[in-house]
Amino acid sequence: MSRTEISTIGEFGLIDHINKYVKIENETTKKGIGDDAAVLSMKSESDRMLVSTDLMLEGIHFDLTYFPLKHLGYKAAMANFSDIYAMNAYPTQLTVSIGISKRFAIEDVEEFYAGVLLACQRHNVDLVGGDTSSSLTGFTISMTCIGMAKEDEITYRSGAKPTDLICVSGNLGAAYMGLQLLEREKSILSQNTDPQIEVQPDFAGKEYIIGRQLKPEARRDIIDALKKEGIKPTSMIDISDEMVSDVFQICKESGVGCRIFEEKIPIDYETASMAEEFNMNLTTAALHGGDDYELLFTVPVTLHEKINNIKDVKVIGYITDKEEGKMLQTRDGGCFDLKSQAWVNVNS
Amino acid sequence: MSRTEISTIGEFGLIDHINKYVKIENETTKKGIGDDAAVLSMKSESDRMLVSTDLMLEGIHFDLTYFPLKHLGYKAAMANFSDIYAMNAYPTQLTVSIGISKRFAIEDVEEFYAGVLLACQRHNVDLVGGDTSSSLTGFTISMTCIGMAKEDEITYRSGAKPTDLICVSGNLGAAYMGLQLLEREKSILSQNTDPQIEVQPDFAGKEYIIGRQLKPEARRDIIDALKKEGIKPTSMIDISDEMVSDVFQICKESGVGCRIFEEKIPIDYETASMAEEFNMNLTTAALHGGDDYELLFTVPVTLHEKINNIKDVKVIGYITDKEEGKMLQTRDGGCFDLKSQAWVNVNS
Repeated sequence: MSRTEISTIGEFGLIDHINKYVKIENETTKKGIGDDAAVLSMKSESDRMLVSTDLMLEGIHFDLTYFPLKHLGYKAAMANFSDIYAMNAYPTQLTVSIGISKRFAIEDVEEFYAGVLLACQRHNVDLVGGDTSSSLTGFTISMTCIGMAKEDEITYRSGAKPTDLICVSGNLGAAYMGLQLLEREKSILSQNTDPQIEVQPDFAGKEYIIGRQLKPEARRDIIDALKKEGIKPTSMIDISDEMVSDVFQICKESGVGCRIFEEKIPIDYETASMAEEFNMNLTTAALHGGDDYELLFTVPVTLHEKINNIKDVKVIGYITDKEEGKMLQTRDGGCFDLKSQAWVNVNS
Repeated sequence: MSRTEISTIGEFGLIDHINKYVKIENETTKKGIGDDAAVLSMKSESDRMLVSTDLMLEGIHFDLTYFPLKHLGYKAAMANFSDIYAMNAYPTQLTVSIGISKRFAIEDVEEFYAGVLLACQRHNVDLVGGDTSSSLTGFTISMTCIGMAKEDEITYRSGAKPTDLICVSGNLGAAYMGLQLLEREKSILSQNTDPQIEVQPDFAGKEYIIGRQLKPEARRDIIDALKKEGIKPTSMIDISDEMVSDVFQICKESGVGCRIFEEKIPIDYETASMAEEFNMNLTTAALHGGDDYELLFTVPVTLHEKINNIKDVKVIGYITDKEEGKMLQTRDGGCFDLKSQAWVNVNS
């Protein structure tokens, strides 16, 4: 692939270059890239605008050794959309700022934006602005996502009530196990110092968990399904860091406790098989792995049947009085305090 | 000053800690920090929301050797407000994301936010969200500012017409000369390797230009004054990078040319005296220095008298047909093509 130095076109040239690929699809976008600020409207006075922002730094949030730039752009955008869906709203606009290290060529930036724009296209979001800068160190990504919703449809973290069901979309721990696999293959490749031996990473039969790490999909479909069933969750959050700390946020903001059933936690077959291969505790990976971008929400217990109608949503527990604590009931009937432990080594 | 490791309270603890200082002042802020997204409203259906974003990276945009963190927070916020004023609108909400290097203590982050919150307070802006992350490398700042305006009041870069007057607020080149002075003193300090000799930077009589670099003020007062006089500029931009490239943006978006008069460019006495001391070309510093955060705008020539009523605004030239080019008329009557030359050494 040919590589063109960014200095040949400069920052303004780069913006013009990327802008050629940008299409505006939303009627609420009155002015996109090209002025001091983007200009947005709302459809009606009772609408609300949602604003969420995420910072992703090389070496902290991603490793370019195995993270293709197109996937990275896609994932960063999805992480932002996910925050808006978690408010029971739809993302409509996105700004993307990047700090570009010297080793980047125009083609790299194009790859990154190709991923961003693919994500935007799939979720009907307009890229309306951003900032580009050179970076003395690693690749820096900052995105801000705007979303819209009717005031009475917005779901906060604070509305969960005792007896509410705790629901989760998709399955958990897959992205984390994908990351473990990518890290292992990176380590094997780096140990091979003999250029005569070509080592290829072995991902056969592991495509699902790799995909969950490299190209997660924000759950617009779940928001659609909830609306179709006429369900407004009492609280909602997206699972980005670790599931336990996300449940804790809901408990904290709602002033409640919770009981999660280990046996109800949805886990994919590939995740389980990979955990076995790595000799890791599967539940720990699901509870603390993070990067799932699934939705965790609560609904009144009376909606149990309606929730069962929604494909890919599972009830994993229920909300309790605050005094009952935040508990995990294990498969063997034991009951333990849930602990946020992103820092604990998940090797069992 | 005592220094407390950030690891003692963690990311969530840090957010809670900062949040204690945050006050919500705008009725359009329905929900600030504390959920997946902030929730905003508009006062009426005909309102528009403005969104602008800026990325600032250590070593590229600022040098912590001489940039106090409180000033840095203040300046970064002002740079964002300035983009919203440049649309003839008022900033209302701000999100702040930071990547924090290991050498930062909680007290450093507090200092930074003290500057951000002071800027917010002075400009009636609510801090409504953000993200914090550790950074393997330098300090990373990304802010997104939201503003509001009536649809018919928004000023774009694209409305300038031939014969329109080109106006600029304040004066130019001061922040750039302040930067030169700070860099010189840093260099002197670093050359002193004898710990017995205490070298103090010498900023006597240079307070104004240092202040322009370290704590610029976004020109809310100019937007107020324009509204008071009933003037809606035909185009507007804020001077952040270099004045010439900002004029070029207006010419490009409006499809026009321009003629700037060297003798009309407003320059402060301290700027001129510092340029002389450094043996630098003063006009070059004013045209290409950047970091001024002044407003540059165009108005119909019929408003000449009204513009003269506004304190601290000067007419520096006029808009021409595109074919007449982008010209600088020098003091001695010569006429030259204006060139964007941020990369040219301003030492004459």
